[in-house]
Amino acid sequence: MIRVVILGAGNVANHLINTFLSKTEIRLIQVYARNIKQITHLKDSISITNNIESIKEADVYIIAVSDDAISTISSKIKTKGLVVHTSGSVSINSLKNTGRKGVFYLLQSFSKDKKVNFDTIPFCLEAENKSDSKILETLALSIGKKIYFINSEQRKHLHVAAVFVNNFVNYLYSIGSDICDAYSVPFEILHPLIEETALKIQKLSPQDAQTGPAKRNDTETIKNHLDLLSNKQQEIYTILTESIINGKKL
Amino acid sequence: MIRVVILGAGNVANHLINTFLSKTEIRLIQVYARNIKQITHLKDSISITNNIESIKEADVYIIAVSDDAISTISSKIKTKGLVVHTSGSVSINSLKNTGRKGVFYLLQSFSKDKKVNFDTIPFCLEAENKSDSKILETLALSIGKKIYFINSEQRKHLHVAAVFVNNFVNYLYSIGSDICDAYSVPFEILHPLIEETALKIQKLSPQDAQTGPAKRNDTETIKNHLDLLSNKQQEIYTILTESIINGKKL
Repeated sequence: MIRVVILGAGNVANHLINTFLSKTEIRLIQVYARNIKQITHLKDSISITNNIESIKEADVYIIAVSDDAISTISSKIKTKGLVVHTSGSVSINSLKNTGRKGVFYLLQSFSKDKKVNFDTIPFCLEAENKSDSKILETLALSIGKKIYFINSEQRKHLHVAAVFVNNFVNYLYSIGSDICDAYSVPFEILHPLIEETALKIQKLSPQDAQTGPAKRNDTETIKNHLDLLSNKQQEIYTILTESIINGKKL
Repeated sequence: MIRVVILGAGNVANHLINTFLSKTEIRLIQVYARNIKQITHLKDSISITNNIESIKEADVYIIAVSDDAISTISSKIKTKGLVVHTSGSVSINSLKNTGRKGVFYLLQSFSKDKKVNFDTIPFCLEAENKSDSKILETLALSIGKKIYFINSEQRKHLHVAAVFVNNFVNYLYSIGSDICDAYSVPFEILHPLIEETALKIQKLSPQDAQTGPAKRNDTETIKNHLDLLSNKQQEIYTILTESIINGKKL
């Protein structure tokens, strides 16, 4: 039975609290938040505190706070136990507790109101030794299924990759949506194509799945497309098209 | 009962032939291909020809050939009937038959071997008058469900929007995949995020769904990310980040 304390009251913390409370293999023994109001709704099911000096003895402390606050908060944890953070972009070395350290990063974007399916979320784990790796694995498997061991160097790059395939991809969707709006075309027409494009790369590498005028080096179509775009859209169209035409690994 | 002739032997033609043959409301009466070998497998179920002079009388002629060949092939259709092409980027005016014209554009990427679910594919239809619109609508509804009337001007822009949300998005996936490969991180870790990002915009506009360091104008993280990227990746990261920060409609 792993005893867990969660520090934080944001989206990740909340989703973890709710799922741990529903599991019998894990004992969530306390939740800490600087602002106690954010967690008072939990007080009937679990011990809560806003005093970091009074956090209880546990096996794992999960720090699910903003990246900037990880060092400070970890430095104040004086009890024994494995201290982990949940950030994709922060190194394990940013943890400033004197004891054992690790990372418990869930690679998914969490929304407050949307129910999370932990079975499909990749857990990216890191620890300093095998026995701590085993603890984090057991903890992750109690709520999820997809477990990966990713060190801080890898995770840093994974986080940038996620910016490309999530934030930047979404931005290209918004360009598509702007173009549709400007010509009174319902953006929903593109939904099935967007979905297919996203699912295709689960079977085919994106390199092999690449199609379109740039891939074919179809200069006539590319020229016609550029004529239809705003300056800023042209700039993005051009740089992506040139990169695809050059075709090499970047 | 609508009588249909299909001209072409590519992916779109093949998928249309197969689905029309399975429907009783439509009579597919003939298939034309320049190279008869591509359609000889159909000869037991249907009339085939490689002689455009001998195509039969029908209600609708569907030209599903490469964009470049549409004008030439349509100019040779001398019989009565509505002549339509299936291209996203070609105007209705590129049809050079002397009679009625239209467009029957299926906005989806077709693979040869992958079964197509016509129920989810948007049919983008265009005709010169109401009765022809009605014919195309009936034809589309016999095999699909999502019908849109999109004129040539709109379709041209829709096609560019599709390049952004399909070809360019896939290219960003390949950048993400390159980054993962370089650090021995399995790209499949990003699959759930990619899927969620694609599905999210079916409920939320991409403008409202935008997250990430650029959206937050988090210059520290942006700087850290740039340090991890190759020159070419930096260039793409920078232009997309600046566009998101500027935040205006392009």
